[in-house]
Order: sequence, then structure tokens, then C-alpha cells
Amino acid sequence: MASGQLSRAEALACAGCRHACHVMLYSDTKTQLFGKIPIKHIILMQMRFDGLLGFPGGLVNPAEETLEGGLGRELLEELGVAIPVSIEDHVDSCYAPESSRLITHFYVKKMEEEQIREVERAAASTATDHGQEVLGMVRVPLYVTKGGGGLSSFLSHSFIGNARSQLVDAVLRFNLVDPEELHKVLVCSLKTHAHTAEDLQAALALTEAKRKRF
Amino acid sequence: MASGQLSRAEALACAGCRHACHVMLYSDTKTQLFGKIPIKHIILMQMRFDGLLGFPGGLVNPAEETLEGGLGRELLEELGVAIPVSIEDHVDSCYAPESSRLITHFYVKKMEEEQIREVERAAASTATDHGQEVLGMVRVPLYVTKGGGGLSSFLSHSFIGNARSQLVDAVLRFNLVDPEELHKVLVCSLKTHAHTAEDLQAALALTEAKRKRF
Repeated sequence: MASGQLSRAEALACAGCRHACHVMLYSDTKTQLFGKIPIKHIILMQMRFDGLLGFPGGLVNPAEETLEGGLGRELLEELGVAIPVSIEDHVDSCYAPESSRLITHFYVKKMEEEQIREVERAAASTATDHGQEVLGMVRVPLYVTKGGGGLSSFLSHSFIGNARSQLVDAVLRFNLVDPEELHKVLVCSLKTHAHTAEDLQAALALTEAKRKRF
Repeated sequence: MASGQLSRAEALACAGCRHACHVMLYSDTKTQLFGKIPIKHIILMQMRFDGLLGFPGGLVNPAEETLEGGLGRELLEELGVAIPVSIEDHVDSCYAPESSRLITHFYVKKMEEEQIREVERAAASTATDHGQEVLGMVRVPLYVTKGGGGLSSFLSHSFIGNARSQLVDAVLRFNLVDPEELHKVLVCSLKTHAHTAEDLQAALALTEAKRKRF
């Protein structure tokens, strides 16, 4: 196990720890972008209430429910449909980067493309958390476009906790992106990220000018 | 007019220029996050096929259609519902940051909250571009949460072209966020953005380790 990771049993034995469970729902797809770029796989993530990207899920209380039961409860609230997640879907557990008293449990569940579409429809219509804890569901692009965009731009965004590393780890573990390709993608993400810094400084200067004018 | 901006007439007179039209759809809302933080306004943006955040819209050909007609065509494809945008909704035109031969036209249209919800439902179900040019619609959080998240985290993401400055400009122009508040938010965005850099480096190191193992 990599550093920081712990077994499910060790995690559950941790006294006074809080537990958060999240799941990566994904499917294969034969669809092509612009009729020529294979999309390959659809992975669902969400824009959270705090403006960060993350996986569906949330805090679970093992004293009152199983990890998977609690995760199922969170998914129903956030996605508007019941999605059974089982212990076989468990991928890893580790301490959250920002706190040694919070353990994050990560699950990966493969679905059919039509089920993913149903989740998206329900998340925008019947989910009680829509517009509240969840600001919208987004698909993760796993391809690289001609201009170098796609996965690299997506990975340059801001993510909650360890969500970005969970995503990177999962695409490698389930062979959704070639490791060499992912390495190039991340180098490109750092460039996009650096460009964003300049852009943010420009927005700050614009606001500064408006502050004086208003 | 600020530097780089031009009038609608000047823009249309530009020989050999391409034109892109985008719209910020928004509504007021009385909803509160967690029953206590006023959400105030709902603004729609989208995760684009290239992994960047942007406003709905796209390229328009003024030789074949009006700017607003072309924008309406793009909105129908991306959002799955017809949304009439008129010349009165036009806010500004300017040269795109990456090319002096591309002019971006920005519109802002106020709607009812229920209309925004209908757009979200249609975008995830009937829109032809769903899962293709559009990976999902997201609401922009305009509030600041207790932990400092919300708008600041959202603005730390990567945006296409001048979409971030269009957003910042529009929230000031339509008084959706106080200028002093927005200034603090952007300072906080820069901190989140810096934190993302470390996180991205960690993801790169993880991939590097996996490359050797696989």
C-alpha cells in the first residue's frame, strides 16, 4: 500500500476518526467527439457547493450505517437515483490530506453508458441536492484534442481534498489512460495552470479598476 | 470603452474576422445553502469538450445569420431548448485574447429560476451536444462559505479565452457581487490556485512512480 493508505479494517478501527466515502461512476463508450476523436470512457464528477470539483459522496457514520450504506444514501441525495455500491467496489482508504482525523474511502463502479445518462438526467431534475450541495454533474474528458486540450485542461482545475489524485490513480488502475500518455497530459496541465495564474491576475486588476470607478 | 473592446458596428465591419457569441444566463433566487447562506443568484456555465469552463454559445457567421440568430442556434444545440437572445442583451464585443482575428460578443440574459432549472434538465437530456461539445452545465456559486470557499474556488479554475473576465465583468456590471467583496474573493482565488499547483505536482510524482511500476 502506498504511504498514507490504510486497510478498510484499520480505517474502521480508528477511534475518533470521521469517514467520507466517494465513488467514481464510469462507463465505456463508442462515441467519438466531432466524429473522429474516440471518447473511450465517461467518468462522472461534480461541481460542489464550495466551487471545487469532486466525486459524488459524503460523510458516513460507521456507528449508524455501513460505509456502503452511507455512500448509497449520499448518492441518492446528490444524484436523484439509487445506486447500490458494494464492498467489492472499494478501491482504497487513506487519511485526508488536510486532516489526520478524516479518512476518505474511495470506490469505483462501472456502469452502462445508458445508466450514466440516466444519472445525469436525474441529477439535474429529481436530486434533492441539485442547486444546493451539488452545482452540476460533469463528464471528465479522457481524450486529448488537437490543440492539446481535454484531460490536461480538466486536471488543471481545483479539486477538493484528494479527488484529483483519486482520479489520476483510478484512470491508471483501471487502464483508462496509458501511463505514458497521462504523464504528458499532466505536464500540459501544469502549463495550463500557469496560464490561469496570469489570467487571474488580470481579473484582479480589472476588479481593482472597477472598485475605483464604482 | 476599455482597451481591446469595440462597438458592435466596428466588430461587424472587421474584414476577415471570425465571430464567437456567448451568453450568461442567470436568475435571482431566494434559496439558501444549508438553510442559512443566501445563494442570491444562479449563473449557468458549462464544462466544455476541451476540459475548460465557458459560457454557452459558439462561432457565428454574420454573412449567413445575425449574431443573435447564430447564438440562438448554438444554444439550442448545447442546451436542448430554444432561448431567444436579442440585441438588447448584448453587453460587449472585443478581440479574443489569443487572436486578433477572432471577436467575442458577450450577452447577458436574465431569466426566472424555473427557466434556469428547465435549461439544466434539457441540457442533460434533449441537447444534441450533451456528452459531445458540452460535458455538463454548472451553476456558479456567488456566495462565500465559512471555510472561504464558493466563488473564490470557482474562479481559481481554468477558463476558455476571456470567459473568466466576462464573468467577473458581468457580476460587477449587474451588481451581483459587491466590488469590495469580489476583490477579496479574487485574492482568495489566487491562494487556492497556488495550492492547486502543489497538488498537480503531487499527481505528476504519483504518475511518475506508476509509470515505472506498470
